[in-house]
Amino acid sequence: MISIGVLGYGYWGPNIVRNFQSLEVGCVKSVSDLNPKVLTKAKKAYPSINVTTDCREILRSPDIDAVAVITPVATHYPLVKEALENGKHVFVEKPFTDNVARAEELVELAEKKNLKIMVDHTFLFTGAVRKTKELIDGGVLGTIYYYDSMRVNLGLFQTDVNVVWDLAPHDLSIMQYLIKTKPRAVVATGECHVNGKEDVAYITVYFDDNVIAHFNVNWLSPVKVRTTLIGGEKKMLVWNDLEPDEKIRIYDKGVTKTNGNGDGNGNNVHELLVSYRMGDVWSPRLEQVEALKAETQYFVECVEKDMRPFNDGAAGLEIVRMLEAANASLAQKGGMVYL
Amino acid sequence: MISIGVLGYGYWGPNIVRNFQSLEVGCVKSVSDLNPKVLTKAKKAYPSINVTTDCREILRSPDIDAVAVITPVATHYPLVKEALENGKHVFVEKPFTDNVARAEELVELAEKKNLKIMVDHTFLFTGAVRKTKELIDGGVLGTIYYYDSMRVNLGLFQTDVNVVWDLAPHDLSIMQYLIKTKPRAVVATGECHVNGKEDVAYITVYFDDNVIAHFNVNWLSPVKVRTTLIGGEKKMLVWNDLEPDEKIRIYDKGVTKTNGNGDGNGNNVHELLVSYRMGDVWSPRLEQVEALKAETQYFVECVEKDMRPFNDGAAGLEIVRMLEAANASLAQKGGMVYL
Amino acid sequence: MISIGVLGYGYWGPNIVRNFQSLEVGCVKSVSDLNPKVLTKAKKAYPSINVTTDCREILRSPDIDAVAVITPVATHYPLVKEALENGKHVFVEKPFTDNVARAEELVELAEKKNLKIMVDHTFLFTGAVRKTKELIDGGVLGTIYYYDSMRVNLGLFQTDVNVVWDLAPHDLSIMQYLIKTKPRAVVATGECHVNGKEDVAYITVYFDDNVIAHFNVNWLSPVKVRTTLIGGEKKMLVWNDLEPDEKIRIYDKGVTKTNGNGDGNGNNVHELLVSYRMGDVWSPRLEQVEALKAETQYFVECVEKDMRPFNDGAAGLEIVRMLEAANASLAQKGGMVYL
Amino acid sequence: MISIGVLGYGYWGPNIVRNFQSLEVGCVKSVSDLNPKVLTKAKKAYPSINVTTDCREILRSPDIDAVAVITPVATHYPLVKEALENGKHVFVEKPFTDNVARAEELVELAEKKNLKIMVDHTFLFTGAVRKTKELIDGGVLGTIYYYDSMRVNLGLFQTDVNVVWDLAPHDLSIMQYLIKTKPRAVVATGECHVNGKEDVAYITVYFDDNVIAHFNVNWLSPVKVRTTLIGGEKKMLVWNDLEPDEKIRIYDKGVTKTNGNGDGNGNNVHELLVSYRMGDVWSPRLEQVEALKAETQYFVECVEKDMRPFNDGAAGLEIVRMLEAANASLAQKGGMVYL
Repeated sequence: MISIGVLGYGYWGPNIVRNFQSLEVGCVKSVSDLNPKVLTKAKKAYPSINVTTDCREILRSPDIDAVAVITPVATHYPLVKEALENGKHVFVEKPFTDNVARAEELVELAEKKNLKIMVDHTFLFTGAVRKTKELIDGGVLGTIYYYDSMRVNLGLFQTDVNVVWDLAPHDLSIMQYLIKTKPRAVVATGECHVNGKEDVAYITVYFDDNVIAHFNVNWLSPVKVRTTLIGGEKKMLVWNDLEPDEKIRIYDKGVTKTNGNGDGNGNNVHELLVSYRMGDVWSPRLEQVEALKAETQYFVECVEKDMRPFNDGAAGLEIVRMLEAANASLAQKGGMVYL
Repeated sequence: MISIGVLGYGYWGPNIVRNFQSLEVGCVKSVSDLNPKVLTKAKKAYPSINVTTDCREILRSPDIDAVAVITPVATHYPLVKEALENGKHVFVEKPFTDNVARAEELVELAEKKNLKIMVDHTFLFTGAVRKTKELIDGGVLGTIYYYDSMRVNLGLFQTDVNVVWDLAPHDLSIMQYLIKTKPRAVVATGECHVNGKEDVAYITVYFDDNVIAHFNVNWLSPVKVRTTLIGGEKKMLVWNDLEPDEKIRIYDKGVTKTNGNGDGNGNNVHELLVSYRMGDVWSPRLEQVEALKAETQYFVECVEKDMRPFNDGAAGLEIVRMLEAANASLAQKGGMVYL
Repeated sequence: MISIGVLGYGYWGPNIVRNFQSLEVGCVKSVSDLNPKVLTKAKKAYPSINVTTDCREILRSPDIDAVAVITPVATHYPLVKEALENGKHVFVEKPFTDNVARAEELVELAEKKNLKIMVDHTFLFTGAVRKTKELIDGGVLGTIYYYDSMRVNLGLFQTDVNVVWDLAPHDLSIMQYLIKTKPRAVVATGECHVNGKEDVAYITVYFDDNVIAHFNVNWLSPVKVRTTLIGGEKKMLVWNDLEPDEKIRIYDKGVTKTNGNGDGNGNNVHELLVSYRMGDVWSPRLEQVEALKAETQYFVECVEKDMRPFNDGAAGLEIVRMLEAANASLAQKGGMVYL
Repeated sequence: MISIGVLGYGYWGPNIVRNFQSLEVGCVKSVSDLNPKVLTKAKKAYPSINVTTDCREILRSPDIDAVAVITPVATHYPLVKEALENGKHVFVEKPFTDNVARAEELVELAEKKNLKIMVDHTFLFTGAVRKTKELIDGGVLGTIYYYDSMRVNLGLFQTDVNVVWDLAPHDLSIMQYLIKTKPRAVVATGECHVNGKEDVAYITVYFDDNVIAHFNVNWLSPVKVRTTLIGGEKKMLVWNDLEPDEKIRIYDKGVTKTNGNGDGNGNNVHELLVSYRMGDVWSPRLEQVEALKAETQYFVECVEKDMRPFNDGAAGLEIVRMLEAANASLAQKGGMVYL
């Protein structure tokens, strides 16, 4: 059984502690936060856990095997680095770091020290994403054409990052997990209206083989939308994460190029060169898992069995690379930035 | 009462004929099409209308006051030009022309000849767009932040244009009608999967004053979506054109920048610098008009009373300018193209 | 090719004429209506059809093989009777007659004269009902438990019948078509608010073998609902007729009685004596048929090939029997009325 | 500050304890349950609370001011009676008792002892019901025509009661709270399919002044529906409790009787004797309250300030009267049972 120290007990930290604590193996030993008030809450909820305002107590403790870094993104790099230097495995909130160079350095350091880094991309552990992965890997959708997601609501404005760094890591990590073709370039557009950071943004990712992905992220929408369309040659999939049931629907719909020829008079813009397929719709039963519980369990398992997590530092680095490219493209108001 | 000749009786032409024919004033005299079969159908439906395979009979007829050009976009320029040269007013299907230079030439020619051009952007005459226009002009939404539309379905692949030129003219014309700030630049991304033309595309339009518009158009979607979000400082609006009733909803929701200050420890990424407003939702009753009937009636009225239509050649030209910019940006795979 | 005369050209008559007229075989010869204005419209739309204000011209014409009776329900009996006496086959709008005795007499008369009666229960010819029939007959749903339909909107108040006789014939005929077990008794409740006839009503039909059906019909609903739930032992089905696509969904859900025993302390009201099955959802592609076209075609076929239609007078009589029982139960404000 | 003892810590009890415990005033002193396992859980969650398997310890404790009875319905009567006899105020889970006579006896006993009974009809404390109450009382809907609710899902089969006693108390209590006209009679139909108790049932309640209410309750539905329509003379309301936002919509729709006269030919079944009003739709922002918290707070307040709760024993008795009538009607398969 490994011992875990959690750094940061703000918005997300309590969920991390609750889930690590609920596992049979794995156990939270200590929690740190700069704010003593939240530590009082932590202590009340978990009397057996040590609390401290000094994260170094955790980072340097010989009793701690792994550290969960659940702090603002700007602090990820120094905290993860110190954890690794002290021989701790690391579970770190998304996004991994605030730039590519730092992420690369951490990945290298972990490699050298033979330590695990897992980046908390929780959605990868939901029943919906797992099922979609299974369907794509099983060839059910055929060649992927596009990935199109919309994640908008009247969102919590953040002071340290724009809407891209806040919301897009979810969808970029899901896309990365699902689509095996290599992403090559990023184009992003967006605008600031309220606090000087982009609150509305649109990101395109170009892949090899004509695959294209697009992400609509918005903190200023009156309605909450969390929908992803995935178009494949054989089937198409719609994932509406707000549906209580039937989150995923698979459509037996598509088009096929044909050798149709028009009426030869050049007047018919609607002459069909494609034929259409319109079949049944199917909504598979999804696993009822709490994603974060599955993820924390997987982290413990990876550490204990010395397995490389699929959402490791290298995977997290690629997300940071796309985020950094998105910001670079935003700065040009939409130029293409190669990855 | 003016006399109208209709060129083209393919997919859209019959709707044009039916609506012009249903007006009290205004009357279709002739219809031309290269395909004799569709003329037989036209004759059967409207025995009193002349039909011909030679459009010049109409373009040169002294009995025709106005010509409706309902043919493939590549033919708009020569047909509209000949119509104007023969002193006819012109009603022309969207998009106005296939490039900016031709549209400019036609606008100038019409001006010189004191003839009307109206571009058929039918959506501008729907109850939903009229009501939205009224709300925005009345200041109900306040300063506009963004315009975000999605128009996707398993669409009719066209052979002469990509999905941008097919679907975006609807939304670009609505945006142009609603937002008075000046558009400055276009960024477009997209990909071809089936017939060598973009079937999935994303267009951003940058305006003055931080207004941003975005258009998601897709011929390869398993589901039909026709939704537009408009974010304003005071209110936000959602237009779902597929709702049988309640197509438009106005949300009394928003955010306001405040002088909030955090806890000073730099640790709180969620310190609120904005306050949130969450109020009622209201769905106004919309006029039950057939948009195309209202538009054809308006065309007749503009000709008869010598009024300049708001959807005139100049307005149509601006749409073509944005479409051309979108194609230029697509050719660079993103990249800002100034208007 | 048979010749058809249509009596009544009000709300529904034009649809009947249009569909009979669109068939390759079968042809409308004459239309009658008491209102000369609607006959002018009929003549304009179909110049080749004879029109008359005297239905007897049609009923007694030797050139007419079959008569479509599309008149108010109180007139069905005399008109159908005269048609049969004159040797005409009959297509009659729902409900068949305004009481059981008259329906019985007409069925007997048709039998004696070897003539067809088909009652226009159009929904039976929709893709949704056909597919549901196929699924139930194929055993996919297993033993049927219940049939529960809701058909409400801000409806057209009728002056001659209550909401039960107006709306329930649709659902009663669908239920009759789908469920082979015998209906035994009817209970109906309802209330009048506007014009002295029930505008809100609830009908229960008891069948053999614990099957139960229920119908919620309402002219005073602010929203339009047309949803039917069918619970089966193996699968459950939801038919939402207002969905543009995916009208039918089949749920692999259900419960099974088990030999579960509780904790023995008598305190546990939630001890499970049933186990639950929650599986996939499936929405089959439906035939894209115009129901009324399929029905009129079927009528012609039945006459020409001397086939008994499944929606014949006997079937229509059973619907009238249930409607009459519903009215009898309504008069008692509930109370079981045996069929 | 009053001291509360909670009897029963099964499905609902933990919610009751959590909410009473979260109040500033009011405090749970003891919890009893026959099952020692659940007491262990209670103790772990609330170390300061006493737990016991003997409810009499609580019922007879001089330190307890009020008792919450959260046990199976058959035990309500003896437990509430003993609590009252020992001078305790009572908060009791719905339905109040398992028959009318017992409820009447308890109401009388509480009256005599000057003690409060509050029946836990939690929905009355939701933002949706409070707002609806406010709208009806404020005359916004005008004269009420009907109340029509549907509460169905693949429900937890209960062993001690049928679906009527399980689900209908929610809706009956809401109806009772909203509609001030007096209910006069009940008609219920239903059927048993799985465990010998009705799992599908339909209840009509007749009121004075032509008001009618109907309740569709079903444990065997593949989909979850929780929708209520309320038709008023001036406005109509739809409450969809499953909507995350916009649970309530108010429709400015209706019909008015007019002196319309038809065309006099007796042929027009669609001659309008009513005129239709179709206006805006409005969805008011609802209070974001946790209903059970508001209710427990209200209970404490009623006890402390000696106020009669509106959801008192007398109100709970009327619900039991309707439930008993529903069962009596079910036994006759749908006869009218007067209240």
